[in-house]
Amino acid sequence: MNPTAHAVAAPLELVAYQPIGVLRSPHGDVQGMPIQPVGARGVQGRIDVAPEFSAGLKDLEGFSYVIVLYHLHRISGYELLVKPFLDTADHGIFATRSPKRPNAIGLSVLELVGVDLDEAGGVVRLRNVDILDGTPVLDIKPYVPAFDVWQAERIGWFAGKVDVAETYKADDRFR
Amino acid sequence: MNPTAHAVAAPLELVAYQPIGVLRSPHGDVQGMPIQPVGARGVQGRIDVAPEFSAGLKDLEGFSYVIVLYHLHRISGYELLVKPFLDTADHGIFATRSPKRPNAIGLSVLELVGVDLDEAGGVVRLRNVDILDGTPVLDIKPYVPAFDVWQAERIGWFAGKVDVAETYKADDRFR
Repeated sequence: MNPTAHAVAAPLELVAYQPIGVLRSPHGDVQGMPIQPVGARGVQGRIDVAPEFSAGLKDLEGFSYVIVLYHLHRISGYELLVKPFLDTADHGIFATRSPKRPNAIGLSVLELVGVDLDEAGGVVRLRNVDILDGTPVLDIKPYVPAFDVWQAERIGWFAGKVDVAETYKADDRFR
Repeated sequence: MNPTAHAVAAPLELVAYQPIGVLRSPHGDVQGMPIQPVGARGVQGRIDVAPEFSAGLKDLEGFSYVIVLYHLHRISGYELLVKPFLDTADHGIFATRSPKRPNAIGLSVLELVGVDLDEAGGVVRLRNVDILDGTPVLDIKPYVPAFDVWQAERIGWFAGKVDVAETYKADDRFR
């Protein structure tokens, strides 16, 4: 790598993904939704995986948690500076977990309840679901603490604010 | 949500993303690369963020770790059953962290060294980089243990195998 020059020759080539399934949850509307899985403890949901991808679920049932990546399909456009749910000041979008991102990819670590496979496809049953009903799912990865857990001393502007996420409900600011 | 029917009306609509920047690292070739950040401790790299997105980096420097989502651009096609680097048995792709996924999105939790902003764009300096040089970056999220760390008792087929990831180097099986 070149250690000095860092100009990016924009625009970078578009990347296209085909969702592997659809998330089903009791959250029919953005307003009033939990803003993180910690605020959705016990809420059940599921991913209906399309038949052409369901063979990829083999052995997933052995994991306690999964990382779900999804397309925030109700978001249009983005903002580079946002006032997130948990603060009254503006922050750069990449320093927040707000949904109105340049690429509207959501990430939730969810508890895995079970996996069902049949001829109609696969169903991944989940708990602590903080995701809107009907959301297209891009990927499911096993959550492996040895890879995914790091001792993070500094959490920026979230310091002193994370506990609020357990009870805070979304308003419609990012619609 | 309908609790019983789960057939997905395929194919689901394609989703397109424009990368926000490019990852630079010493890893010029897949073969011999670390397979996770735990196997890349100390390896420095950076994300060159395009000028039109760099304002979104405000306040990111306050975090110890970031979640980087990226497009595994050297991967073509996918397999639903794979023999991952750490095992000799086949597993469903969604039960592995292997790159040859239906949607080739990579996820790494990386140590944040610093953020530089100037008229040419933004640079996010990182450590423990396990990502190929030239990889398009889709998103950067702050790593917040209160949201991202869960007590996962069961890690499926990874049990007894995760320590190997600290020294294992990739071969070209997923090219």
